[in-house]
Amino acid sequence: MKNFKWEVVKKDSFSNARCGNINTPHGTIQTPAFIFCATKASLKSLSAQQAKENDTQIILSNTYHLMLQPGDETISNQGGLHNFMNWKGPILTDSGGFQLFSLGYGSVADEIKGKRNLSNRKKSLIKVTEEGAIFKSYLDGSKHLLSPEKSIKIQRNLGADLILVFDECTPYNITKSETAASMERSHRWSARSIEEFYTSNYYPSMKGVSGNQKLYGIIQGGIYEDLRNESIDFNLKNDFFGLAIGGSLGATKKEMYNVVKYTTNNLGEKFPIHLLGIGDPIDIWTLVKFGIDTFDCVMPTRIARHGVALTRENSKGKINLKNAKYKNDKNPLELGCKCNTCTNYYRSYIHHLFKSGEILGLQLISLHNIYFMNFMMQTIRDSIKNDNFENAKNDWFSA
Amino acid sequence: MKNFKWEVVKKDSFSNARCGNINTPHGTIQTPAFIFCATKASLKSLSAQQAKENDTQIILSNTYHLMLQPGDETISNQGGLHNFMNWKGPILTDSGGFQLFSLGYGSVADEIKGKRNLSNRKKSLIKVTEEGAIFKSYLDGSKHLLSPEKSIKIQRNLGADLILVFDECTPYNITKSETAASMERSHRWSARSIEEFYTSNYYPSMKGVSGNQKLYGIIQGGIYEDLRNESIDFNLKNDFFGLAIGGSLGATKKEMYNVVKYTTNNLGEKFPIHLLGIGDPIDIWTLVKFGIDTFDCVMPTRIARHGVALTRENSKGKINLKNAKYKNDKNPLELGCKCNTCTNYYRSYIHHLFKSGEILGLQLISLHNIYFMNFMMQTIRDSIKNDNFENAKNDWFSA
Repeated sequence: MKNFKWEVVKKDSFSNARCGNINTPHGTIQTPAFIFCATKASLKSLSAQQAKENDTQIILSNTYHLMLQPGDETISNQGGLHNFMNWKGPILTDSGGFQLFSLGYGSVADEIKGKRNLSNRKKSLIKVTEEGAIFKSYLDGSKHLLSPEKSIKIQRNLGADLILVFDECTPYNITKSETAASMERSHRWSARSIEEFYTSNYYPSMKGVSGNQKLYGIIQGGIYEDLRNESIDFNLKNDFFGLAIGGSLGATKKEMYNVVKYTTNNLGEKFPIHLLGIGDPIDIWTLVKFGIDTFDCVMPTRIARHGVALTRENSKGKINLKNAKYKNDKNPLELGCKCNTCTNYYRSYIHHLFKSGEILGLQLISLHNIYFMNFMMQTIRDSIKNDNFENAKNDWFSA
Repeated sequence: MKNFKWEVVKKDSFSNARCGNINTPHGTIQTPAFIFCATKASLKSLSAQQAKENDTQIILSNTYHLMLQPGDETISNQGGLHNFMNWKGPILTDSGGFQLFSLGYGSVADEIKGKRNLSNRKKSLIKVTEEGAIFKSYLDGSKHLLSPEKSIKIQRNLGADLILVFDECTPYNITKSETAASMERSHRWSARSIEEFYTSNYYPSMKGVSGNQKLYGIIQGGIYEDLRNESIDFNLKNDFFGLAIGGSLGATKKEMYNVVKYTTNNLGEKFPIHLLGIGDPIDIWTLVKFGIDTFDCVMPTRIARHGVALTRENSKGKINLKNAKYKNDKNPLELGCKCNTCTNYYRSYIHHLFKSGEILGLQLISLHNIYFMNFMMQTIRDSIKNDNFENAKNDWFSA
């Protein structure tokens, strides 16, 4: 079994962008990379095989959803997530924190994306104590406790290669002192996550059902530089393989870019850095420059289910195939795209599939969107290696 | 472009079962064959490419649905169905008659399958006149006329290789004299279909948008031997490439088997014979013995969408993956099956996908069911060629 290793293989000469390799027992991730969400152990309408054929390197599954259905014990009995969903490549699982609190408060990503009216969101979070978070199942309303220890145990049962400490995903609309208190609790939970990871004996230390695992810490601190600093110090002192940037990144893209830039500036090259929940192409091109190595977001497959394909043909970066203007359009989703959908189907056909309620339509767009994201990340990596990142960025958005 | 040709290549030494080839400009269909329904120009959750990879030889699309959405003119503008849905193999289109009348009365297949309570079925048929049938669109309630001339014109715009005359699909619950009158009208409509096919000038004679086409006649007469005789005489006198058995086949499997046996006994080897709308494995094994060459049915993909997989493991021939007993089942859908689903996924995973509402579940079963049907038809063809059809049938159902 291959070992874990992180290395920066090329730094951009003009920015903090960098190419690296994250070696895991299930394969190497070339960074910058996009991590696709297989929330409930499924990439929505794509099989693991199709994801692989379209150059997907790594997927993410969610502790919160899988602990409730089918249950982490069931997945453990099937040999872990890799075996259960027949994805033989690297997997990352979140700790449940982000999901849990975003269902309670509304997510950071939603805040950044301007979705401020979250009043009708279904609340699942009941109570947060020092022990952990008590929440109602989104499936049947039953009550559950998720704690650092339980999150790590679940993630060891799921068996992902890369796992996250359990944190409180601090919301945006609170004071600085509340943000500080939340960060400090996240640090205490982080320490308990580490303790559980190294010492509990249901698997050998640092292993899950599929073998060795590595732990990512999460940097909190909201939009406050001094708090981010404190959290960076905490995380650098601990034995993490990688670091994720969590908590509130502000309410605008500008605030998000500032927080990320400030945070990454203080992290160096020792760790692969993951940014949770961000995936719009313009954000990725911008944040790679600050040194982000991996991104995840449900966007590519979520918009596909609503008939929206990623493209470079207009400034929005998207087209909606349900629009009547595509009824007779004999172009592929994206001119020049080499994905299986674009080389085989017209927009007219995909428009028809949505008009007639055929699910093949969303499958064809999902496949294109995944290919599109992976092709974009490859373009980014190539441009960093060739020291022409800025040109490549301009080319991408003026295609 | 290859020509059309039908030939029987091997007759079973112990029954009327036979192997043949239907050559079309888009490829050869080895018979007995199953024709999968791509009603609205989509095999539900499978792409044309996936259907091909799973040994699908020919698909069927429906005039009734496609004339309403996206419209046959739109499909013609895209180069016909082959091009529109990127299926490069043979296609058969029905004439709209079966769909139209089955939506009005309930279908023959439903009668045979014991679904007699059709009172809450949405009625779309308004009136049948000598000119044709007036019906309401199932999409928006708008009124349309479908006539023999219009059905042929639509089918030439769709461009299938094999097309059907427009007929009245006679219901079961009417008298013999009504059945006779309906049959006679179908014959008059058949003559008009032929006239339109050979003489109308929107395409060259006998061609559609994708090139040469061939016409199938439909044998009517309900459950009455003398009427079936009369319809056989009518059809044999006309210049058809193939013949389909239509109209009521009775209310029980026994009646259906009798009608089919009687009819095929009088047809010889001159035509490939299609049986409309029948697809249960036990029916296929039985009716192949009477000389049926092709079958079509929505069953394999329809049951898949409800979590049901075809299997030989029990007498029902099906298992429902939503059943809780599959929660931890580490078997494939069918032991020994070489399809992509069975070689890659456990029942436990597919059970989870249905429990969590992930559409990948129905995709994985659809793929298995299509492979299963094609594998069964291959087994039937091999057994006819090896003169061990009866043994193969017994083996199939005792696996």
